[in-house]
Amino acid sequence: MSQSDNATPNSGIPTMGRYPVLDRVRGPDDMRNLSADQLKQLADELRSETVDAVSTTGGHLGASLGVVELTVALHAVFDTPDDRVVWDVGHQAYPHKILTGRRDRIRTLRQPGGLSGFTRRAESEFDPFGAAHSSTSISAGLGMAVAHHLRAEDDPSYRERNVIAVIGDGSISAGMAYEAMNNAAVAGPGAGRLIVILNDNEMSIAPPVGSMSNYLSRLMSSRQFLGLRDLAGKVAKRLPSKIERTAKRADELARGMITGGTLFEELGFYYVGPVDGHDLNQLVPILRNLRDADDKGPILLHVITEKGRGYKPAEAAGDKYHAVSRFNVITGEQKKAPAGPPSYTSVFGRELVRRATTDERLVAITAAMPSGTGLDAFAKAYPERFFDVGIAEQHAVTFAAGMATEGLRPFCAIYSTFLQRAYDQVVHDVALQNLPVRFAIDRAGLVGADGATHAGSFDLNYLCCLPNMVVMAPSDEVELLHMSATACVYDDGPSAIRYPRGNGLGLDLPEAGEVLPIGRGRIVRENARGGIAILSLGTRLQESLKAADLLAAQGLATTVADARFAKPIDTALVEQLAREHDVLITIEEGAAGGFSSLVVRHLAETGLLDQVKFRPMALPDTFIDHNTPEAQYDEAGLNARHIAETAASALGVKIAAQQSA
Amino acid sequence: MSQSDNATPNSGIPTMGRYPVLDRVRGPDDMRNLSADQLKQLADELRSETVDAVSTTGGHLGASLGVVELTVALHAVFDTPDDRVVWDVGHQAYPHKILTGRRDRIRTLRQPGGLSGFTRRAESEFDPFGAAHSSTSISAGLGMAVAHHLRAEDDPSYRERNVIAVIGDGSISAGMAYEAMNNAAVAGPGAGRLIVILNDNEMSIAPPVGSMSNYLSRLMSSRQFLGLRDLAGKVAKRLPSKIERTAKRADELARGMITGGTLFEELGFYYVGPVDGHDLNQLVPILRNLRDADDKGPILLHVITEKGRGYKPAEAAGDKYHAVSRFNVITGEQKKAPAGPPSYTSVFGRELVRRATTDERLVAITAAMPSGTGLDAFAKAYPERFFDVGIAEQHAVTFAAGMATEGLRPFCAIYSTFLQRAYDQVVHDVALQNLPVRFAIDRAGLVGADGATHAGSFDLNYLCCLPNMVVMAPSDEVELLHMSATACVYDDGPSAIRYPRGNGLGLDLPEAGEVLPIGRGRIVRENARGGIAILSLGTRLQESLKAADLLAAQGLATTVADARFAKPIDTALVEQLAREHDVLITIEEGAAGGFSSLVVRHLAETGLLDQVKFRPMALPDTFIDHNTPEAQYDEAGLNARHIAETAASALGVKIAAQQSA
Repeated sequence: MSQSDNATPNSGIPTMGRYPVLDRVRGPDDMRNLSADQLKQLADELRSETVDAVSTTGGHLGASLGVVELTVALHAVFDTPDDRVVWDVGHQAYPHKILTGRRDRIRTLRQPGGLSGFTRRAESEFDPFGAAHSSTSISAGLGMAVAHHLRAEDDPSYRERNVIAVIGDGSISAGMAYEAMNNAAVAGPGAGRLIVILNDNEMSIAPPVGSMSNYLSRLMSSRQFLGLRDLAGKVAKRLPSKIERTAKRADELARGMITGGTLFEELGFYYVGPVDGHDLNQLVPILRNLRDADDKGPILLHVITEKGRGYKPAEAAGDKYHAVSRFNVITGEQKKAPAGPPSYTSVFGRELVRRATTDERLVAITAAMPSGTGLDAFAKAYPERFFDVGIAEQHAVTFAAGMATEGLRPFCAIYSTFLQRAYDQVVHDVALQNLPVRFAIDRAGLVGADGATHAGSFDLNYLCCLPNMVVMAPSDEVELLHMSATACVYDDGPSAIRYPRGNGLGLDLPEAGEVLPIGRGRIVRENARGGIAILSLGTRLQESLKAADLLAAQGLATTVADARFAKPIDTALVEQLAREHDVLITIEEGAAGGFSSLVVRHLAETGLLDQVKFRPMALPDTFIDHNTPEAQYDEAGLNARHIAETAASALGVKIAAQQSA
Repeated sequence: MSQSDNATPNSGIPTMGRYPVLDRVRGPDDMRNLSADQLKQLADELRSETVDAVSTTGGHLGASLGVVELTVALHAVFDTPDDRVVWDVGHQAYPHKILTGRRDRIRTLRQPGGLSGFTRRAESEFDPFGAAHSSTSISAGLGMAVAHHLRAEDDPSYRERNVIAVIGDGSISAGMAYEAMNNAAVAGPGAGRLIVILNDNEMSIAPPVGSMSNYLSRLMSSRQFLGLRDLAGKVAKRLPSKIERTAKRADELARGMITGGTLFEELGFYYVGPVDGHDLNQLVPILRNLRDADDKGPILLHVITEKGRGYKPAEAAGDKYHAVSRFNVITGEQKKAPAGPPSYTSVFGRELVRRATTDERLVAITAAMPSGTGLDAFAKAYPERFFDVGIAEQHAVTFAAGMATEGLRPFCAIYSTFLQRAYDQVVHDVALQNLPVRFAIDRAGLVGADGATHAGSFDLNYLCCLPNMVVMAPSDEVELLHMSATACVYDDGPSAIRYPRGNGLGLDLPEAGEVLPIGRGRIVRENARGGIAILSLGTRLQESLKAADLLAAQGLATTVADARFAKPIDTALVEQLAREHDVLITIEEGAAGGFSSLVVRHLAETGLLDQVKFRPMALPDTFIDHNTPEAQYDEAGLNARHIAETAASALGVKIAAQQSA
């Protein structure tokens, strides 16, 4: 398999010449004849290079530092990319990217046009499965392993490959990982080539929660790290000749039944561990044994690592530098963003805490994202009413539904893209039963550096189609304050507020949010009759106002309204705008068919659709790569000039703004 | 708590007078002073009444027969409805319905206007959480238990209640159930009132699969049924005074760590069992012990039952009468539906098998629905290429995605409403990576007797918004044959076919399906220019043609087209229809905003929206109760007369059809 030839000595890597071993590694092929000492040195150099690179870009440093040795060992032992290494979540793959032909671009991580902050199939043949959401690696790896076996049966020249899924202890608590483990041992012969590496660092983004986490701690503390000889023996014992296999396995099953095995053994895995994940002298020989065995069942290798390992400021930090901005390598000091307006996240969190002081029924649920969702303040103030269920969005939603049946007022705070994990629960357990669960949907719309995997592009589509749902989207942080207050007291059914990543506009925040009337929008700028009406849902309102200015400069009068509610729509406002204007534009920060589909339905039912030139504006039908949010919305065609052009074009006129692209 | 007073002696129950004990039970309150012998007799009578009722209605008989004794024991011991009994899935709740004031309506099960075939909050205070999809009960029950505790803290007069979640061994294999179990022991003090009853009958709809199932078999076979004294002792030992608690629990944790407990114990549950679920002399005292304990952790009571128990024809049947049509009580003979056209399900299954004979890359995946999805024939023909992953939709989809990365052609056959469980996997693992996973989406649109929980109303919304997706919907079974063939060979990205429950039209089926051009519809009936165009997606095509007849009778000429593809839309066809007609109607068997939103967007972008009267027809914004599909579509306003009325109204004329309602 050919190596990428991007990493030439003259490729402009600023650290080229600094690392004697790493400098010679153009790809994993160059690692396979290195001595144990050289591999150790490579790991040290790789760690240093990772720190240096992320200091200039920001990113997920802690997780990457924890798997430096594991990354080196995997590529040294396995025949990547023919053997498949699937990194769960993929944010720990920076060292992997450096070793697999992407060192020359590692300082473009998460930058516009640069490398993704996650694994990505389009980026490298060494990324056999893209990720970003957690807990997918075992399913994907199992699918690969089974596929290899089937293809080998059809084509004797096809070599079966090893598949290695590397998953963290936080991610393995998700139901999806359990479903995959439950299936692995029975999925068929190919599954024997699946090696799950449980990367146990006792940290997801927040400290892990749940019984699985407690179990892993007990498992670890009850066993000594196995010495090399023990492990080799254990592995060899597991991997007998084919002749011995059947009897042996039956025997093992029987023993497991009598003595009780680990939880992983109960699920049909052969458990090996725990192993010190920073000791290459253990990792390399164990992985070699697993690789060379003829006949394996699915194996779980339990590796203990330390998040942030080897970089003092990260090791010392509470979050182990999970996600950092640019920083000074010597001091570890992170570049602080200039003090700006409060984030939407914090405005929501603040109002929830305020309301909870007088409303004992308010409770809050997060799926492993207490700080990302702004619930950390709530958790501190009301620990008894705060529930972090771990990476378990499905459970989070139905758990909240159960609470709602008993008269509590649950807020379920989950990012737009992660709520996709709990869609059936939103439909079946919440909307169908019309239970007053409140969804606080952060990261709605385009999100910047995290890219398409984290974009909240679809929630308006998957929520607006549900009977009983109320869906709000604030145009600024003051509106979010009001909507948070509204959701607190709305008990007639489920409700959702979807709001963007990032900071508000810097408006003066009132002390308390006001409760809004359900399904009522507001006119923000009104013109005389005729001309253009823009009905904006969410934070495109600012661009809509700018568009109105552009249009005014061309003599085109424009009314701008803030829909506030994607559902129910403000039918009176829609009718008024349609009746009084020649053109009606709706704009939303989501894919086509969400808010606008309710508007067009109402316009059609009232016949007003035949009287107004209706132009729904929404995200285009493409996934938009990581970039600044502004650039992403420009690519999406949802900025002021696009709105103005759409309006002018509907009226059959050209405007100067068209040239200002 | 007041009992329902629906079950009066004169309420027209045909079996009234036949069952001495059951006849006197108007609700659980009437059971609480019954002797052990009377409870036993009640169970026998209840079983007989259940068989008799379902013989007249059809329904999920096998599961209900398996829990007759458990149902009696639960209501005899616990203070329902104050204590909450949450039945997972809810299709085993027929005996529960009979005992909780609904005996007088039990022969309306699944009939229009009658009782739901599942638990339902709106139906009874004894149904604290509605269900139909599996594996939600532990999450919901945990939410209730925690809520009770919080409310009791605020209000000392509020009595904490017991919460019992009854879940089958098939359902507990889903990731969601695992997420809930992982959270239960750490969710807070209220969780101590949660009792999970694992109803282990070694059967879901199909025989269960996966390591959890194997594990439960080992667990059961390695242990004798505990005698009453053992169990009482075990329970008592578990439930010490509060003073002893902390030390005891620490000790138990330590023992669990050293000796290895059951998998449930590893997850923080106290495991009791196995218990013979048909022996009231065991069930009642055990449940009493659990009820009366002051301080419990979450408990898992492992109960062994037999699906179809006590009714010979059910016990003898392979599927234990999982879901039956009406039948003869004496012989067990089910009323056969008159031989009709082949079902959509079978047409899909047939074409897949045919294609697989010459295409070794075709593989098929189901989530515990081999026969419901038509894959049983495939499974028989190609067992190595067939994968039943159990109730694990999330894993099913990403497992298929992993296979697709290695060049296989996976078909993932999942009902529309259950695919909601895997939405994030469709977005993140399939669409984002543009992998050629094929979704065979059965039960799209309204589904009849199973009601709103099983309706496939939202898949067009949640799929059409995704970049890269191809979405097809056949107008009849021949079209489904073609679309199945098309999906087999389409390798450029993900594709989906969504088709209804039930039989086709009885058309002659060609030997093999033809591969259709992607994104091209067809005109079925063409009129001269002017008048009305109906662009139908899916099986409303027949109603569209009838509507055209109705309109023709009024002198209104109508073109009818079959869209075939919800995505990508046939832009040339849409433009032609819009340009050549005064009115353009789209109709789809899904909620507003799916297919139509792509049409409206294109019409707006081309300006054609200003030239044609556009009328999108879709499901209304309500959940539609169980009924015949025809009546459901009538309620939805999507039958011929509604289409004709919509067209006529757009043209400003009244038609006679309006009076034919």
